[in-house]
Amino acid sequence: MESLPKNLARDLKDIVGSNWVLSDRDRLLAYESDGLTAYRSKPLAVVLPETTDQVSRVFKLLSRNNIKVVPRGAGTGLSGGALADPTAVIIGTSKMNTIIKLDPDNRRAVVQPGVINAHLSEAAAPLGLYYAPDPASQSACTIGGNVAENSGGPHCLKYGVTSRYVTGLTIVTYEGEILRLGGLGRERGSYDLVGVFVGSEGCFGMATEVEVKLLPKPESVRTLLAIFDRIEDAGKAVTSIMARGLLPAALEIIDGATIRAVEASVFAGGYPVDANAALVVEFDGIEKGLGADVQKAISDCKKAGATEVRSAATSEERQKLWQGRKKAFGAMGRIATDLLVQDATVPRSRLPEVLMKISEIGERYDLNIANVFHAGDGNLHPNILFDRSDSEELQKVELASTEIMKVCVAAGGTITGEHGVGHDKKSYMPLVCGVDEMKTMKKVKTVFDPYHGMNPGKVLPTDI
Amino acid sequence: MESLPKNLARDLKDIVGSNWVLSDRDRLLAYESDGLTAYRSKPLAVVLPETTDQVSRVFKLLSRNNIKVVPRGAGTGLSGGALADPTAVIIGTSKMNTIIKLDPDNRRAVVQPGVINAHLSEAAAPLGLYYAPDPASQSACTIGGNVAENSGGPHCLKYGVTSRYVTGLTIVTYEGEILRLGGLGRERGSYDLVGVFVGSEGCFGMATEVEVKLLPKPESVRTLLAIFDRIEDAGKAVTSIMARGLLPAALEIIDGATIRAVEASVFAGGYPVDANAALVVEFDGIEKGLGADVQKAISDCKKAGATEVRSAATSEERQKLWQGRKKAFGAMGRIATDLLVQDATVPRSRLPEVLMKISEIGERYDLNIANVFHAGDGNLHPNILFDRSDSEELQKVELASTEIMKVCVAAGGTITGEHGVGHDKKSYMPLVCGVDEMKTMKKVKTVFDPYHGMNPGKVLPTDI
Repeated sequence: MESLPKNLARDLKDIVGSNWVLSDRDRLLAYESDGLTAYRSKPLAVVLPETTDQVSRVFKLLSRNNIKVVPRGAGTGLSGGALADPTAVIIGTSKMNTIIKLDPDNRRAVVQPGVINAHLSEAAAPLGLYYAPDPASQSACTIGGNVAENSGGPHCLKYGVTSRYVTGLTIVTYEGEILRLGGLGRERGSYDLVGVFVGSEGCFGMATEVEVKLLPKPESVRTLLAIFDRIEDAGKAVTSIMARGLLPAALEIIDGATIRAVEASVFAGGYPVDANAALVVEFDGIEKGLGADVQKAISDCKKAGATEVRSAATSEERQKLWQGRKKAFGAMGRIATDLLVQDATVPRSRLPEVLMKISEIGERYDLNIANVFHAGDGNLHPNILFDRSDSEELQKVELASTEIMKVCVAAGGTITGEHGVGHDKKSYMPLVCGVDEMKTMKKVKTVFDPYHGMNPGKVLPTDI
Repeated sequence: MESLPKNLARDLKDIVGSNWVLSDRDRLLAYESDGLTAYRSKPLAVVLPETTDQVSRVFKLLSRNNIKVVPRGAGTGLSGGALADPTAVIIGTSKMNTIIKLDPDNRRAVVQPGVINAHLSEAAAPLGLYYAPDPASQSACTIGGNVAENSGGPHCLKYGVTSRYVTGLTIVTYEGEILRLGGLGRERGSYDLVGVFVGSEGCFGMATEVEVKLLPKPESVRTLLAIFDRIEDAGKAVTSIMARGLLPAALEIIDGATIRAVEASVFAGGYPVDANAALVVEFDGIEKGLGADVQKAISDCKKAGATEVRSAATSEERQKLWQGRKKAFGAMGRIATDLLVQDATVPRSRLPEVLMKISEIGERYDLNIANVFHAGDGNLHPNILFDRSDSEELQKVELASTEIMKVCVAAGGTITGEHGVGHDKKSYMPLVCGVDEMKTMKKVKTVFDPYHGMNPGKVLPTDI
């Protein structure tokens, strides 16, 4: 077991204060994994700075001592992206949680990276504004983490992912250099360094200030829940809705296994437990226009074979219709000790066949796989329920998971929609990227991080 | 005068066909400038390949001979980005104009770079789809050029610029290497090489296939034209419309000088010639919802002091309301021998003060400056009308132009909104970017183009 050299601990404490350098094994426990609990490793230490300047000084100190650095937000990530080996130091953003500026005139906010996603929308609400990207973990995950993973969410079908909203960044490189990129009034122009930093998974540097676009809150929202006997029918409804040119804010499918898990939990939303799929359709915009869209979507669902279509009249009812989707992970956590949340995308038109193949894989390995997915985007989240103390089952999970990835890639998809590559999926990268493309990626990383001190062992296979 | 070595000419002709290597001085005339005619230079030769493979072979040949390369679309660019010095070869995309694929199920198109922007929307129209970015030059400019410049247009207020739509690229590097980046089902995932290539102004490599998102055509469009005595009042109307949370598809201001130029031309749209500003407001979406938005916008215009608000009932009338904006450059070309179309952005909230300062600069230098701008985005296009044969006037234009840039930057803006940095503005880059940021940019370019053979002398100051 490595331990933090005393003089280094002292120097770090001089920068951030003595309470904010954690190196006791007990206190490190909370940092040994992120939301993907299958991988665990305790870091050398955790440092919790408060300002850009502190991050810069901490990075200078660590890079001079050849100690690698892993930035970490709330640790809700699902690809092991915030995993740190025992020689690396985690830089946590929990104290960098200030909303620095709300600028309604230009519809912008500037935040520290540790600001929780949902808190930003809450703070902007009195101004009639909100922050659009809404990962399922939005009540816990941070804007900094969202920047690292280029996070999406159910509403990114209409509103797009994080990269559409980030207009400026202050970043600190491993060597402690502070760079300001883009920013209000300067968001366009060559070359797009902000764009390439978003989604770089903590491997280029650490964002210490993030400027984002805010949107005006939609005047009105309408939510439908359609119930199906067959998941293919839910898929057909999605195809019809999109084919007629409607642009729902969200199109989410929840399969039968997920419905039953949610209904058996405290989160029950009143979905019929014998159903094999539920489709949440949401429209937002100007009140007057929504009725017609809703009617068209209801008609598409019925034509596709929906046995029932519910529509929410109040915000409470809306929440109930969303329950099966929003509480899916929580509910599954109650019926299985472990959960592997997969994340892949396929072209929307290939969804039905991919779902059938995933179901076959589950049967073949005798594994319980529950699917929830952003159907409109072709972004799948197959959830494999298992018990990690059963080593035989664990092995089956790994094999099934790899097969699922291969099926998605063979259908023209990719290995991550919104969770990132992280530690978990770097071995899959050659499935979707040519060697030349990965080498180019590595070179771009090297521009920002020539000593390869940022978030080592993530994203790219080690032999690239 | 340099000339193309005979054996090289022969080898190039072997690749692309003997008609498609131009080196006669007469035939090169059309390639001596782009839309920014103030700069002129004849290239060594022009090569017009037809396929990715041909581009790769041409690039290999040229890079081995140490000859630099300048990709060029339709030459409508306004920053001298396609300017080639007498030692460089232009690679034109005029023969790479095939729409390779229209995929309505996934709302995508794959095109060669020489496809004209408007042609893509025309081809997609029977499928109920269109390509959103709409530069003023869309009837001539190419998708490849749009990728290079990350082009916008009047409707990017609501719909965003090119980078939001490009989901995959095939690029050829200076060394002739073919790289496939992103693509349907693979548009997300680390790191975002597609994102950083878009807007790289031909300095990283040449895109030879471009995959873009298409959008469903809006059900309905409503256009308003509000007339003002004072340009500040038009600015106020913009502020009110945005402040109440409306999201128009376009918000364009045309100043008095521009109105008079257009009305004096064959393009006359019937604007009152004594007006000092006109504001085009357009909403699109579901028919039912539009009426309310239009009413709110009319009320905002009137409160801000509009002397008249016209509304279009037919598509013909719509076109007439747009005339003052869409034909502005053409009309100015008729009243002045030369035109410098500037391009800068400022935070929307700083527009009024910046407009006043530009007007002061025009008066001080006794220059005719006509303004059209994407007001919703804070993207200004001051047009300086002049006669380049008058060397004293030419000098005043350069001084005034620099002052305008400085005013925009001082207001928190930047030196280009959508025309790119190109040759024209590289000297302004230090106004908005730190040396460290520019060095990082150069390093990212070097990843793609280690020999610095692509579009030399553009974007970054030579001393970086």
